[in-house]
Amino acid sequence: MTPYRKSDFPVYDVRRFLEPGPIVLVSSALEGRTNIMTMGWHMIMGFQPSLVGCYIWSENYSFDMVRKSRQCVINVPTVDIAPAVVKIGNSSGRNTDKFAEFGLTAIPGERVEAPLIDECFANFECRLVDATHIDTYCLFILEVVKAHVATSPKYPETIHYRGDGIFMLSGKNTSRYRKMFKPEML
Amino acid sequence: MTPYRKSDFPVYDVRRFLEPGPIVLVSSALEGRTNIMTMGWHMIMGFQPSLVGCYIWSENYSFDMVRKSRQCVINVPTVDIAPAVVKIGNSSGRNTDKFAEFGLTAIPGERVEAPLIDECFANFECRLVDATHIDTYCLFILEVVKAHVATSPKYPETIHYRGDGIFMLSGKNTSRYRKMFKPEML
Repeated sequence: MTPYRKSDFPVYDVRRFLEPGPIVLVSSALEGRTNIMTMGWHMIMGFQPSLVGCYIWSENYSFDMVRKSRQCVINVPTVDIAPAVVKIGNSSGRNTDKFAEFGLTAIPGERVEAPLIDECFANFECRLVDATHIDTYCLFILEVVKAHVATSPKYPETIHYRGDGIFMLSGKNTSRYRKMFKPEML
Repeated sequence: MTPYRKSDFPVYDVRRFLEPGPIVLVSSALEGRTNIMTMGWHMIMGFQPSLVGCYIWSENYSFDMVRKSRQCVINVPTVDIAPAVVKIGNSSGRNTDKFAEFGLTAIPGERVEAPLIDECFANFECRLVDATHIDTYCLFILEVVKAHVATSPKYPETIHYRGDGIFMLSGKNTSRYRKMFKPEML
């Protein structure tokens, strides 16, 4: 499992990797502890600022870590670490150091205290910008403040969850419909 | 383009088709007019009730139609109608009857006034259950009140948007990681 070589990526364009709907890993830190959770419920909510809405269940150990620290990293894993992704989703940070347990490398964030997961294709450093919908809907509205994306391949093979233990893997990418777009819609 | 044969589907399980992140078509009706929009920004927000959050930009013709009628249908298109999906996203309901223009068939909803798109693999009839975040975030919180899903194939070939005219097509589905889940996590 070779960590990807990454470079800075424009935060307004993280949709390229999140809008197709992959499972992501949310890493966080609070009071000397770190944690990772597997998350499938997220959506882009804007470009500038670069907003992402996501659902973190109140029973998850990450819930308080993200709410109290007001920051986290959204990491995009690829199919090569799918077993780790599943194990992360089936264990709790209450009694597990998930970085150590699952052989993942924590890299310090540049703009947040939360750690990046080196083995993921992309890392999006986020700040919690609106906490007012957490109590009613477990909805965290995050702003991506710094993005790191692997320089190769152009598009990763991501994993997409269907529930019931079933994953859909990303398929081919195509620009064949691009000529049908109006210029202002691109 | 043969319409799919569909049957009723449990509303709590629509994640199977939405959580992997496909582009969807939102159909709506108001005061004798109908419309369709292409939408990529959506997320599951609960099972019971079956909640879906989605972003509808205030400049879209559908914005007022869904907000005022308080209902819509989320339709899941497959790659065979990708050209229609792109054309729908590149035209406005202000001056286009999109059902007629793009050769799509409107089927009456059972629980909502908005029409279903017969040519889509799945149709989820939705009611707007929380409009309080529309002004601040264009966020519509919908409850799926009735679901219709094609009986075959089990999983459709869906299209996932990356921005800039590029689509990712869904790939294979796998249960190979299912044995790694705790029973209560399935």
